[in-house]
Amino acid sequence: MSAVQVGICGLGTVGSGVFNVLNRNASDIGARANSEIVIAQVGARRDNPACDTTGVEVVRDIFEVASNPHVDVVVELIGGTSVAYDLVMTALQHGKHVVTANKALIAEKGMEILAYAESKGLVVAYEAAVAGGIPIIKGLREGLAANRVNWLAGIINGTTNFILSEMDSKGRDFADVLVEAQEKGYAEADPTFDVEGIDAAHKLVILASLAFAIPLSTDNLFTDGITRLEPQDVAYARELGYAVKHLGIARKTPEGVELRVHPTLVPQASLIAGVNDVANAVMINADAVGTTLFYGPGAGAEPTASAVIADIVDVVRSINCDSDAKVPALGRSLSAIEQQPIMAMEQIETGFYLRFSALDKPGVLSAITGVMASCGISIEALIQREQPAGEDYVDVIILTDITREKLLSGAVERIQQLETVRGEVNLIRVEHLDQ
Amino acid sequence: MSAVQVGICGLGTVGSGVFNVLNRNASDIGARANSEIVIAQVGARRDNPACDTTGVEVVRDIFEVASNPHVDVVVELIGGTSVAYDLVMTALQHGKHVVTANKALIAEKGMEILAYAESKGLVVAYEAAVAGGIPIIKGLREGLAANRVNWLAGIINGTTNFILSEMDSKGRDFADVLVEAQEKGYAEADPTFDVEGIDAAHKLVILASLAFAIPLSTDNLFTDGITRLEPQDVAYARELGYAVKHLGIARKTPEGVELRVHPTLVPQASLIAGVNDVANAVMINADAVGTTLFYGPGAGAEPTASAVIADIVDVVRSINCDSDAKVPALGRSLSAIEQQPIMAMEQIETGFYLRFSALDKPGVLSAITGVMASCGISIEALIQREQPAGEDYVDVIILTDITREKLLSGAVERIQQLETVRGEVNLIRVEHLDQ
Repeated sequence: MSAVQVGICGLGTVGSGVFNVLNRNASDIGARANSEIVIAQVGARRDNPACDTTGVEVVRDIFEVASNPHVDVVVELIGGTSVAYDLVMTALQHGKHVVTANKALIAEKGMEILAYAESKGLVVAYEAAVAGGIPIIKGLREGLAANRVNWLAGIINGTTNFILSEMDSKGRDFADVLVEAQEKGYAEADPTFDVEGIDAAHKLVILASLAFAIPLSTDNLFTDGITRLEPQDVAYARELGYAVKHLGIARKTPEGVELRVHPTLVPQASLIAGVNDVANAVMINADAVGTTLFYGPGAGAEPTASAVIADIVDVVRSINCDSDAKVPALGRSLSAIEQQPIMAMEQIETGFYLRFSALDKPGVLSAITGVMASCGISIEALIQREQPAGEDYVDVIILTDITREKLLSGAVERIQQLETVRGEVNLIRVEHLDQ
Repeated sequence: MSAVQVGICGLGTVGSGVFNVLNRNASDIGARANSEIVIAQVGARRDNPACDTTGVEVVRDIFEVASNPHVDVVVELIGGTSVAYDLVMTALQHGKHVVTANKALIAEKGMEILAYAESKGLVVAYEAAVAGGIPIIKGLREGLAANRVNWLAGIINGTTNFILSEMDSKGRDFADVLVEAQEKGYAEADPTFDVEGIDAAHKLVILASLAFAIPLSTDNLFTDGITRLEPQDVAYARELGYAVKHLGIARKTPEGVELRVHPTLVPQASLIAGVNDVANAVMINADAVGTTLFYGPGAGAEPTASAVIADIVDVVRSINCDSDAKVPALGRSLSAIEQQPIMAMEQIETGFYLRFSALDKPGVLSAITGVMASCGISIEALIQREQPAGEDYVDVIILTDITREKLLSGAVERIQQLETVRGEVNLIRVEHLDQ
């Protein structure tokens, strides 16, 4: 096959990684793709000192790349959902295959983009959009093609995992670790997307669409970040045998699909509890294979480049195949993608960790456990912390069995109304990820 | 595309899994493959009560399947390397694509089989041959296509991992756990292939070929099993912060490729140390992505079926593509596969755990550490166990820094010659798997 011409749009962290790895490993990559892969053009607002672009045409207008008649594959690495959307659609209009690392774009505008690509027989590949260097899209879409997925749960944001790992291992508080994460380049100056779970939500949408053949959509997805986590909750969790992880969870139930991102207690002995620092990991439980876990770096120039280039190789290999031979973007034809009800949080069933402050006197625990019992909620563990001298209130920590969130909310409301309970009930969901 | 006709040869554990999952998930699998997949014929010496073969033609002669003009894809699930070899070659002669779960066949006769398939433009797919349901072949060959692999290390035999997990968590001895593993169906009546590391060696050959573009061959591969592991070594390892795992390790060095299967101390805090029971996991460290880990069930009817069917879907999808569009069996054209020197064990560098029995009197430790020093070996930790009352000898345990095996062997020889040392020096290699 003659050489395939790639145009790279964006020469930031990921763009420079793609540029450098494509050059460094050119002969191996070409051998795997059955074709030489040439960087025909780079579109970037400014040069990146990390890349030696000698001999490569660099233009300032990325749309020149998208319409360049010599370019076969456009690699979108500029991020965001407005210009990136225009860029991808322009590339498709010009008959180019697209590789992107843009999770927000795929999660929010994926259905439109993929439909247009499908109508033109073009590939839009997005392995790098979820979990960085981990080949999780390929693993789920192709590697587990025999399966019906029951659930998946992932640590899919490296920033929050770093912060939680530090809070857990060193007892530090959220704000303190966030500053370090920003200094290390793990967190943006405005960390909202990461710490509020929006980035993880985008990735979860993509994984859930592949797992359950539902449209890409953030509608009805529940998202909670880690900003309100207190160090003592991480410490109490540890005492109870759990680690706190920020998980994206998607589960198929008879009532619909659960889609939720939130801090979660997971058993310390579970493999996913051992995934620390900026690493990512995705667990998938499916009917034939059982439970698998895919672990690796969730971000960074070269890990992300690894995923982008794997997509380029796939595109190159299938470039002359008819549509039937191409792996469908969402694992099956878009006509087979169907909306299913996304469950409201009050419908979901999970375990709960509760912490609140209660007066330390006889009968208080009895009232609290009475509320739980009358709501039909079983208690798995209860800790009452000795109060410091001079304190009338103690921390009460309750772990519940699996219960419906609606029941739990009712119980929490009643506990908060008890005169012996002070302030808010802090709540973290608990998952055992074993069924 | 018209329906693709699959012939299944072998209806044992894996065969029945493939048969049942293909039927149960037929509509999902067909949607993913862009084609209906039909079981056209089953070849099996006897029926399997786990499978309802009503409406499917079952023949006793598997070679009928291999030459059946209606069959497009032959699935070889009979195991072994003689009849299976004839069957696969017959299928290829008749223009059929082949999917197999047979690690011994691919490791020992793969080069001949794959060359013949390549010459005929046919696919031989073998995802299920390594690590059961984990899509590790796909992950390594396609998902990490951008990378040069530095090393890989895997728990790739569920039987040995179950035995070691039990020895570690419960202090049981090898023979005792082996009996339980046999009762549970985790180990064969003749467990040699598993416990002596031969099964793991076959799988390592396949992974190493994909990682380093070397021919499939068991030549010069070092294999050591777990039969000589003593419970006290597992206990001492734990005390030192390590778990004992049976690993297949392949590493690229400037001097050649390391290929070795042996019990290995790995840090307890590492993710792979948490892979217990019959689970498998493969770590891959590569230049762009860094370190990844793929975890899941390494055996069993349906997990293995998951991998077999993923291969069938890939074959179906590429059935009308030209050769360039097919993923090459070893990741690149066979003409690009080149022998590289496989290193002798005396050349490799690793850490070592040593245990031996020494007289408990002044000067003995000094003599031992003197030997190590004069051999240029640094000691990372040394434990001397208090002897039980009436015993003159104590257990001495040494952990060394990374050193060349040849130096270590010299030191061991000299330690064994010391008059104050009794019996053999027990040796287990140590890997930190972090570089």
